[in-house]
Amino acid sequence: MLFLEYDGTRYGGWQEQKNARTVMGELREAAEGFFGRRVEIGGAGRTDAGVHATGQVAHLRAEPRGRPAVEQILRALNEALPADIAVKEVREAPARFHARHDAIARRYLYRITRRKTAFDKKFVWWVKEPLDVIAMTQAAALLEGRHDFARFRAQDPAKPDEPSVVVVAEAKVEQDGHFLLLHFEASHFLWRMVRRLTGALVKVGKGELTVADFKALVDGGRPDLDVAAWTAPAAGLFLEAVRYRSAP
Amino acid sequence: MLFLEYDGTRYGGWQEQKNARTVMGELREAAEGFFGRRVEIGGAGRTDAGVHATGQVAHLRAEPRGRPAVEQILRALNEALPADIAVKEVREAPARFHARHDAIARRYLYRITRRKTAFDKKFVWWVKEPLDVIAMTQAAALLEGRHDFARFRAQDPAKPDEPSVVVVAEAKVEQDGHFLLLHFEASHFLWRMVRRLTGALVKVGKGELTVADFKALVDGGRPDLDVAAWTAPAAGLFLEAVRYRSAP
Repeated sequence: MLFLEYDGTRYGGWQEQKNARTVMGELREAAEGFFGRRVEIGGAGRTDAGVHATGQVAHLRAEPRGRPAVEQILRALNEALPADIAVKEVREAPARFHARHDAIARRYLYRITRRKTAFDKKFVWWVKEPLDVIAMTQAAALLEGRHDFARFRAQDPAKPDEPSVVVVAEAKVEQDGHFLLLHFEASHFLWRMVRRLTGALVKVGKGELTVADFKALVDGGRPDLDVAAWTAPAAGLFLEAVRYRSAP
Repeated sequence: MLFLEYDGTRYGGWQEQKNARTVMGELREAAEGFFGRRVEIGGAGRTDAGVHATGQVAHLRAEPRGRPAVEQILRALNEALPADIAVKEVREAPARFHARHDAIARRYLYRITRRKTAFDKKFVWWVKEPLDVIAMTQAAALLEGRHDFARFRAQDPAKPDEPSVVVVAEAKVEQDGHFLLLHFEASHFLWRMVRRLTGALVKVGKGELTVADFKALVDGGRPDLDVAAWTAPAAGLFLEAVRYRSAP
């Protein structure tokens, strides 16, 4: 069981692909170099191209010669991985642990800045227009509970029949100086859902979408509105944490 | 009066130089573009190549046509400046305000990480060896007060006669998760002083320098020890704040 953080800027996302560098691909290369044989890897969240993680969780199954200590695996992986991927912790997991199937909730953070920042252009969305944070907070509160998020997903070709009803455990807007931090927690999220929710919340903040229209979208309505066009940039998005039944 | 933050990685420091891009040079270009004429600029702290700032202060004197509002100057400078330099605030200052002469104290932060981090390789020093934080805290406390820091300075060719006695108002070590944050405040600092203090404190943390030997260095002694060789990397250092008599 691996806890990872990464700067997703240079990668085509978490999941391995042909013709693109991916975080999981880098992890596989580091792990197979260390164990000297093929390993099985899986991650809890399929972060998209350019999306970051502070709390990705992965399983890694290998049949090592000998039995290396977790500290030894941690050190070897970090030495082999590029500077923008870090393994924070390695723990022994139950034999059949599966990072994605066993996860009961994912937590995402979207970072918005309201002024230019010198340090984190790659890690934030700079919204130059004034934002009505009270309206955004009201709209975010409407997300909690069970809703049909069909209007907020991109159709995933790998999952044509995926249901679009999701139970959102938490959605809130937090002010931290010139940053707005949007927190989302749900059992799972649909493809692009967090970025489209963020984009719609920013529309509310700018006064270009009423809270009532936002509510209609959250109930699957208003097919006339082009939610996809509002999708927030990947740079501001972080997979923050993954929860398991017995808290890891 | 400008409050600035910058990622110093790409620059040859704050101060204008021939043959190097500098933060002040970029600021001059942006300001002269906006005002359409030569401006007078000065900064409170001469950060070195690769050193960052979250709280640099500068004065900027121009004879503008008309009288642009501070918000207009702020917006124009940020639009013209590169992404790694941000003006946080512009304020009208008293007519003879001088960012360096009027400053009564500078505050620096040095960031150390004890594990690999994916996000801020450019903004932190990763010390892989275990560190005795208690010994470092004891050593840091010895810095407060008036001492002869001759052993911790690099000789500045521009100031051959600069005295090496400095009154340090605060020096402390703070733990924040896997980060160690070293805070230093003094009326002024000698060239390279913060990086050499940090290097020596890390030596103490590693058990390679006793607190007693550190104390001897702080009193100007132990010429046999090569403090310069321990200089901490520029990447971890930030000019955090500059204080003025009437708190800005």
